[in-house]
Amino acid sequence: MQLNETHDVGKRSWLDSANQAETDFPIQNLPFCVFRRACGGTAAIGVGIGDQILDLAAALESGAIPRSPGLDAAAAQTRLNALMALDRGEQSSLRKKLSALLDASCDGAQRERAAGHLVPMRDAELLLPVEIGDYTDFLTSAWHTERHGRFKGLQDPLPKAFFSLPVAYHGRASSIRVSGTHATRPWGQIRDAQGGVRFAPSEAMDFELELAAFVGQGNQQGRRVEIGRAGEHLFGYCLMNDWSAKDIQWWEQVLGPFLGKSFMTVVSPWVVTAEALAPYRGRMDPRPAGTAAILPHLAGGNETLDLVMEAWLQTSRMRGEGTPGVRLTRTNPRNLSWNFEQMLAHHTSNGCNLRTGDLLGSGTVSGASDDAMGCMTEMTSAGASALQLPNGETRSWLQDGDEVFFRARAAREGFASIGFGECRSRILPANAGDSAAS
Amino acid sequence: MQLNETHDVGKRSWLDSANQAETDFPIQNLPFCVFRRACGGTAAIGVGIGDQILDLAAALESGAIPRSPGLDAAAAQTRLNALMALDRGEQSSLRKKLSALLDASCDGAQRERAAGHLVPMRDAELLLPVEIGDYTDFLTSAWHTERHGRFKGLQDPLPKAFFSLPVAYHGRASSIRVSGTHATRPWGQIRDAQGGVRFAPSEAMDFELELAAFVGQGNQQGRRVEIGRAGEHLFGYCLMNDWSAKDIQWWEQVLGPFLGKSFMTVVSPWVVTAEALAPYRGRMDPRPAGTAAILPHLAGGNETLDLVMEAWLQTSRMRGEGTPGVRLTRTNPRNLSWNFEQMLAHHTSNGCNLRTGDLLGSGTVSGASDDAMGCMTEMTSAGASALQLPNGETRSWLQDGDEVFFRARAAREGFASIGFGECRSRILPANAGDSAAS
Repeated sequence: MQLNETHDVGKRSWLDSANQAETDFPIQNLPFCVFRRACGGTAAIGVGIGDQILDLAAALESGAIPRSPGLDAAAAQTRLNALMALDRGEQSSLRKKLSALLDASCDGAQRERAAGHLVPMRDAELLLPVEIGDYTDFLTSAWHTERHGRFKGLQDPLPKAFFSLPVAYHGRASSIRVSGTHATRPWGQIRDAQGGVRFAPSEAMDFELELAAFVGQGNQQGRRVEIGRAGEHLFGYCLMNDWSAKDIQWWEQVLGPFLGKSFMTVVSPWVVTAEALAPYRGRMDPRPAGTAAILPHLAGGNETLDLVMEAWLQTSRMRGEGTPGVRLTRTNPRNLSWNFEQMLAHHTSNGCNLRTGDLLGSGTVSGASDDAMGCMTEMTSAGASALQLPNGETRSWLQDGDEVFFRARAAREGFASIGFGECRSRILPANAGDSAAS
Repeated sequence: MQLNETHDVGKRSWLDSANQAETDFPIQNLPFCVFRRACGGTAAIGVGIGDQILDLAAALESGAIPRSPGLDAAAAQTRLNALMALDRGEQSSLRKKLSALLDASCDGAQRERAAGHLVPMRDAELLLPVEIGDYTDFLTSAWHTERHGRFKGLQDPLPKAFFSLPVAYHGRASSIRVSGTHATRPWGQIRDAQGGVRFAPSEAMDFELELAAFVGQGNQQGRRVEIGRAGEHLFGYCLMNDWSAKDIQWWEQVLGPFLGKSFMTVVSPWVVTAEALAPYRGRMDPRPAGTAAILPHLAGGNETLDLVMEAWLQTSRMRGEGTPGVRLTRTNPRNLSWNFEQMLAHHTSNGCNLRTGDLLGSGTVSGASDDAMGCMTEMTSAGASALQLPNGETRSWLQDGDEVFFRARAAREGFASIGFGECRSRILPANAGDSAAS
């Protein structure tokens, strides 16, 4: 993707909060969301800038941004899908217009018009931004896969196909929720060490730190997307917590994960566009020596998004103590063995049709080192060695009240640093009502 | 579910075609579809009767059926979802009104009004009837599972969890198409006996004969549906061909089926309601001696739908010869180890929310005997022993031009026999254009 003036590190906004070093949303970012004013009102598409949200439809209507029929219709929706389905040129042109409107050099009537359509983030409720038709979750970290394979006692912890294709499974779309939604600890069938099976609340709750991509333009059923054009179908990215109940998953899993994950998956509310992320690319980890060459239909370069991704834990006690939480993980998509272009090309290689709004998860983003593990299962060797938290608490698995939040930033020499906002969710106690019923 | 006058075997319609013994659509059936007149026009909801389709919205508007605001709005849609989400009492009341309107005793102005809104099936195009949010496919035939496990050389061909819970995986919703849509032979990664992997068209194409249920009213995320109430959430049923490319599936499968099935799944266009099927229930196959008792949250009786389900094959040569095809399979959902009430209760047991229009597949409906195998993989021992067809052709796997169609009928002493219509689809040659690209 071409870099242009919207990526310029020297660019500053007339909004002070957008020029602070720590903001996730400088003028170089301009991510999309769907929001509702806390005081009520309908859902609307917004653009993040500093600590404010620009109401896109209102800005268009007021003339702050030059209008076009396709853009007007897309901006008036209550999900991002129509905007995501627009021609890439039109999307890029919108980014330029937004960048110009919020630039420090914009003043007078234009700036005033824009200022009239800003809503402080603290006064807004962020909603699930996209209507997700199908959700696919990949498994692309060899580190995560190997560690899991070893816990299961597999002789060959990495599946044979791992470096030949990006392993994936279909996930559950209905239960995807936006950051801030809490997950009720699920009940399920759990097998004990003696082989007895009971129906009970999960005792092995885990988070999984993932990066996820939203499909922009889809493809026709029966026609695959060439690897060289796969990037054109990736609209933008968010963070994702693939909540998992490992004990449920271990017993049920014959044809892949099912109830161990389908109770809830949580995504961050901001869709950071592929165009905003264009400068931040890095080489993926090299493949092990002797690994077969990637087949031509998936040979798509060895670069991926270069982000620092973090998982944090705040227990109930930490909340009581006023502690913001403890960082558990610091990892990077460069630790993965496949990039999103390869995932998308593989997904369509059999003619499967992707639709605008489909969500592709990277799988747990784990790296080689102990502080780059993307889930508790890895950190505790599947519950065998408890995590020691700084306040004296320990965790083999997540407890009720534990809140997990993810952050991510992209940075590169000569470019601004942009962020993703938070993906935050808490474990709520299992429904007691189920006890009697079971 | 209560039986009532709509199930009465003595009931006849004023439409002769509905009174023929061989029709799938006597007045006791009244399945729903979405259709479009072949001469053009918009999609509309229809009711099948004999060889005709009653245009539901038009019949309501004309006063042929008593109106109600909820029903009017639902009938005016171009998918069945709103109708499926109605209160069960309202759905049952609609069935009674339709049954009365089409009954031989209905005459005069009412009959004339109804007759004015009939469209011959041969003049209509049947569309995908439901907007499917999530599609879940189960694996509930022990016969199918055991045979597959043996082909794979598994010591223990039946997974340990098989009789403890209905095994399932999430399927791909975007690629579900209606009967009459043909499947392009997919390309994929295929591993040969020497361990080499190539990207090529599948050489192991198979059908899988399934029964599938559409969810009517959904459930709230975090709240499971009790087994005793699961039936209230099942709106109706169709036939489903879970097209499979077994060679792609064998290599890719780590977390369940993915590209080996996601290129296309085909459903029959008629949704036969749970209420129409209420009389036709039979005992499921007994579980093997020594199998642990079903846990209380899934203990839901041992009955299921009693249907004769058939898979037929018509090769290109048979079409040329004017032969309608050869029957490959004759099976029954009674061969399965779990019923749909159990599948739905299990699916929601972790709090996963089902939505109106979600589709639940039974998995391949295979029985014990050689003529009750629901897929080619079983019939040919995974391609090892070719099928001998009556016209001298042989098949290890499906060839280009092969058309597979399914039929099913429900019958019970003292009740009319009702059918499902056809689920029909053909294998088209792989895209040649992909050859150069690979």
